[in-house]
Amino acid sequence: MKKPVKSWLIATTVASVLAVPGLSHANKEVEALTKDPKNFATWGLDYAGTRYSTLDQINTSNVKNMQVAWTFSTGMLRGHEGGPLVVGDVVFIHTPYPHRVYALDQGTQSVIWEYTYSGEKDTDQAQVISVMCCDVVNRGLAYGDGKILLAQGDATLVALDAKTGKVVWKVKNGEPKVGMTSTNAPLVVKDKVITGIAGGEFGVRGFLAAYNLKDGSLAWKKYSMGPDADVGLNPEKTMTWTDGKLAPVGKDSSTKTWKGDQWKLGGGTTWGWFAYDPQLNMVYYGSGNPGTWNPTQRPGDNKWSMSLWGRDADTGEAKWVYQMTPHDEWDYDGINEVVLVDQKVKGQDRKLLVHFDRNGFGYTLDRTNGELLVAEKYDKAVNWATHVDMKSGRPQVADKYSTDKNGADVNTKGVCPAALGSKDQQPVAFSPKTGLFYIPGNHVCMDYEPFEVEYTAGQPYVGATLSMYPAGVDAKTGEKNGSHNLGVFTAWDATTGKIVWSKDEPFSVWAGAVATAGDLVFYGTLEGYVKAVDAKTGEELYKFKTPSGIIGNVNTWSYKGKQYVGVLSGLGGWAGIGMAAGLEGGSEGLGAVGAYRSLGNFTKLGGTFTVFSLPNK
Amino acid sequence: MKKPVKSWLIATTVASVLAVPGLSHANKEVEALTKDPKNFATWGLDYAGTRYSTLDQINTSNVKNMQVAWTFSTGMLRGHEGGPLVVGDVVFIHTPYPHRVYALDQGTQSVIWEYTYSGEKDTDQAQVISVMCCDVVNRGLAYGDGKILLAQGDATLVALDAKTGKVVWKVKNGEPKVGMTSTNAPLVVKDKVITGIAGGEFGVRGFLAAYNLKDGSLAWKKYSMGPDADVGLNPEKTMTWTDGKLAPVGKDSSTKTWKGDQWKLGGGTTWGWFAYDPQLNMVYYGSGNPGTWNPTQRPGDNKWSMSLWGRDADTGEAKWVYQMTPHDEWDYDGINEVVLVDQKVKGQDRKLLVHFDRNGFGYTLDRTNGELLVAEKYDKAVNWATHVDMKSGRPQVADKYSTDKNGADVNTKGVCPAALGSKDQQPVAFSPKTGLFYIPGNHVCMDYEPFEVEYTAGQPYVGATLSMYPAGVDAKTGEKNGSHNLGVFTAWDATTGKIVWSKDEPFSVWAGAVATAGDLVFYGTLEGYVKAVDAKTGEELYKFKTPSGIIGNVNTWSYKGKQYVGVLSGLGGWAGIGMAAGLEGGSEGLGAVGAYRSLGNFTKLGGTFTVFSLPNK
Repeated sequence: MKKPVKSWLIATTVASVLAVPGLSHANKEVEALTKDPKNFATWGLDYAGTRYSTLDQINTSNVKNMQVAWTFSTGMLRGHEGGPLVVGDVVFIHTPYPHRVYALDQGTQSVIWEYTYSGEKDTDQAQVISVMCCDVVNRGLAYGDGKILLAQGDATLVALDAKTGKVVWKVKNGEPKVGMTSTNAPLVVKDKVITGIAGGEFGVRGFLAAYNLKDGSLAWKKYSMGPDADVGLNPEKTMTWTDGKLAPVGKDSSTKTWKGDQWKLGGGTTWGWFAYDPQLNMVYYGSGNPGTWNPTQRPGDNKWSMSLWGRDADTGEAKWVYQMTPHDEWDYDGINEVVLVDQKVKGQDRKLLVHFDRNGFGYTLDRTNGELLVAEKYDKAVNWATHVDMKSGRPQVADKYSTDKNGADVNTKGVCPAALGSKDQQPVAFSPKTGLFYIPGNHVCMDYEPFEVEYTAGQPYVGATLSMYPAGVDAKTGEKNGSHNLGVFTAWDATTGKIVWSKDEPFSVWAGAVATAGDLVFYGTLEGYVKAVDAKTGEELYKFKTPSGIIGNVNTWSYKGKQYVGVLSGLGGWAGIGMAAGLEGGSEGLGAVGAYRSLGNFTKLGGTFTVFSLPNK
Repeated sequence: MKKPVKSWLIATTVASVLAVPGLSHANKEVEALTKDPKNFATWGLDYAGTRYSTLDQINTSNVKNMQVAWTFSTGMLRGHEGGPLVVGDVVFIHTPYPHRVYALDQGTQSVIWEYTYSGEKDTDQAQVISVMCCDVVNRGLAYGDGKILLAQGDATLVALDAKTGKVVWKVKNGEPKVGMTSTNAPLVVKDKVITGIAGGEFGVRGFLAAYNLKDGSLAWKKYSMGPDADVGLNPEKTMTWTDGKLAPVGKDSSTKTWKGDQWKLGGGTTWGWFAYDPQLNMVYYGSGNPGTWNPTQRPGDNKWSMSLWGRDADTGEAKWVYQMTPHDEWDYDGINEVVLVDQKVKGQDRKLLVHFDRNGFGYTLDRTNGELLVAEKYDKAVNWATHVDMKSGRPQVADKYSTDKNGADVNTKGVCPAALGSKDQQPVAFSPKTGLFYIPGNHVCMDYEPFEVEYTAGQPYVGATLSMYPAGVDAKTGEKNGSHNLGVFTAWDATTGKIVWSKDEPFSVWAGAVATAGDLVFYGTLEGYVKAVDAKTGEELYKFKTPSGIIGNVNTWSYKGKQYVGVLSGLGGWAGIGMAAGLEGGSEGLGAVGAYRSLGNFTKLGGTFTVFSLPNK
């Protein structure tokens, strides 16, 4: 019997990459990989999460000639979030839960190894799926020290040998029986791997955890709320923005913003993306919505849900924290990615952290200390707050859109954005050439009806019903235009908080963007298109319809001197969950966007990796 | 809410095509459609099943530039057999059971309508799937009189309004509880639709049925075995080749070749493809293997299993019948397609029927009367018979490979071909430019172990286990070469019975071919490649890796002046059933090809329609 694949098993291409590191060098190894644009070695391309590639072989002049180079079915339907990881010559792709990971040989477009995970013996797969809010998505893989890391749907974290796909270790990071699941993309930082937890709709108390890369033992774990020690807060040293300056958070800064021990069910989950600054040795991320979605049940600011964090990478201690949406009344979950860039603000060179929150504000902070520099609406439809008060750092909530009037539930109509935010999980890209951020966005408003809900472990702890619909205004000006667009793709200046250009999309843009030195920005659409636009003007220069709707991240890398662009298509996620479950219409439980019903006219479930390049010659 | 799809629902592109026909003209309508290469309006492109397109925009010079134009996920995994039907500007695609049918707008690459079928209320979907031998495949749609016809897995036949996808009528063609299913591609002939039945591994007595296109009422139904009236045999007028001439079949020609009433479980199913000659008004097809696979349980010739048929299209009466494999001992199911061509044989213009049987012989008959003209091995690995005796029309079985020695079961090793045949369901193409047939083939041998089996309705009635492996010889010369190839693609002269060229493939070629006036032949491979070869030489001029393994037919058509090539990928079928069921390895029950295990190194389950064209400009 011919075994044409034997040679691949040797995986020499991976081996060459893996020759370098010892454990203590994992950090430097990953950083080095991210500096060679041949790779796409972290979810964000680099530790800063810029999703900017210096490759320029495909550029504004020739992108019109781009074509599909090869394709690969993942063998799984439902929502495919995250993007391909490229380390050396090997491409690693992943699927929704129950997971598959494939190491693909780009030369032969075939499988070097595959990993299949159907769950632990004592775990009920159907139960796990039932508590995976918003589809069985996964945001992707991390690489470090010869291992591929995957945060699995059942809240286990697994390390696979990058050469063979064999399990090196696996640890339980949370309990799915109480609604904990994992969907985040881990990040390897030094000798640790950073991961989070999902379950904000199940009364889960969120945390960030660091496991030792070597053996999976827990290095540290810091909650989003609770006693100072749990949260990694130093009352005197952890700083926050307040009254126009940075000040220590003080004692019990979290627990005193909750009634009784409600913080134990407090949410603040961490199911998105993490960034790292090797110079500062700090890890950055956002924490999610407080539980429940019914604000009257949880009086107080509900700290530190809905917050941005800067933590010491070695200890997890918080150096600073900033709450964007105190006492959330709309599910403006704060987990969206943070991007670390160095730009001038008001003439001064600053080390920035930029974040586009579900609440519709684009935040620019000093990442060294948490100083609030800019907070502006990146979609002019946003109406729940008139502005962010730069002194207090708090949003000025518009009474009319409050769902909690002195402790009484209020059914509220026309709140913008809808719960899925002006942007959700789909990561932005940043181009140092233009100095702009590129935001895949939703352009959706909602009616919000809170109701009382009782906590039962493992059961939804939501407490609100939503209906969502197009914003009907111009995203750049806020002027009413009766548009039925549900999405918008926006270029943003984070130093001033200004929209530079925006481009309407019929459906929410739920796919991560990537910017390149070819002056291009790539993104995907729910109908399944991969699009390339001019980074300066937003002009659409290319589009191609992949097999299924795209909620994954478009990534780019090179192989044997040729630039490739690749994306997982696979309709699903919150935006497409109704269809992902085989139903017509949106997600009834978590707020149906009636419009999504028509997505079925454009695309169907699928799971395909599509790779693009310029033609030969 | 914006409804960008409203206008498609009007489906003007379909309407223009549908304006012509009245019921009596359905025949002429389909014939006219098949003569315009813009369409691909029957499974075989034309009534003759040539799968030859006069389009030549894509040709041997420029095919290297061909690229993917667009893609569409069907939303279903498992084996996707059959090909797209193109009628006017609309492309219709289908999925395995439980079925979906999509009418696609080529301009917007979106869904005009979709049809979803989960089965009848009183039908257990899992039961239907359990009796679908060799995966839940379907060989595709037929079009006629404004209707799209689909033979559904649960043995119902449905007619959909081609403009709206609404069910016009649906009839029960068989009972899945006793193992009857439908996987064939129907064919519209005049005011009727021709369909067959599957279930040869469940003791089903096969038949060909014609339903009235107007309302689904049964027009005629003719069994493959049983009393003359059931079979549509006229003892004096139905002819068969015997003793060097055509002679009437005589009375009880079927029943007297079976012991007792074994003919009632006799097989001879009809799950493939049908052809039609409008001049002769005859329908042609092959009938399948006798039940069980254990020959010692059914002494006799088991007529008319394993036979080629020419029937009057209006009445179903058999004008002639020819049995290729009397008393089958190897499951050389005779259902492979027949192709109707007019060529010179021995200097004489003949109206031919050409058929490449699972048994490894390529047959050329006079389709007007059933005269046997040529019967030669189209893969020199074939060893179960030394030759076909042209006088008797019977194969000369090699004793060594007989599995029934005077009524005793014999375990037999090294039989070529394996049960899946030198070719299975994958249809050939014929080019009038070269005068050659292009055969997607298997190159596989087997060990065969018959055993006694008792009939229980709805339970497998197989009676043999197989193991399959590469033939290890040169397909063209028959010389031992130790090759591990499981597939071969062959060019064949049917007038002389000679292999012109052959091209090895690592895996069985399970995808239908199409030939074009551009001197190209397209086919697909189990690894997922679409390949284009030079029709004259077999030289490979293009290949592209689609998302999943291909067992569907590659078709070609044009839209707005541009030639397109399209194929459904979706690993499965007998060749990939193990993987289709989510398992590694082949189909244990029906004979595992150990080699298929490694298919998983190349491709995974999927269901994607991929469309190719030349680049713009």
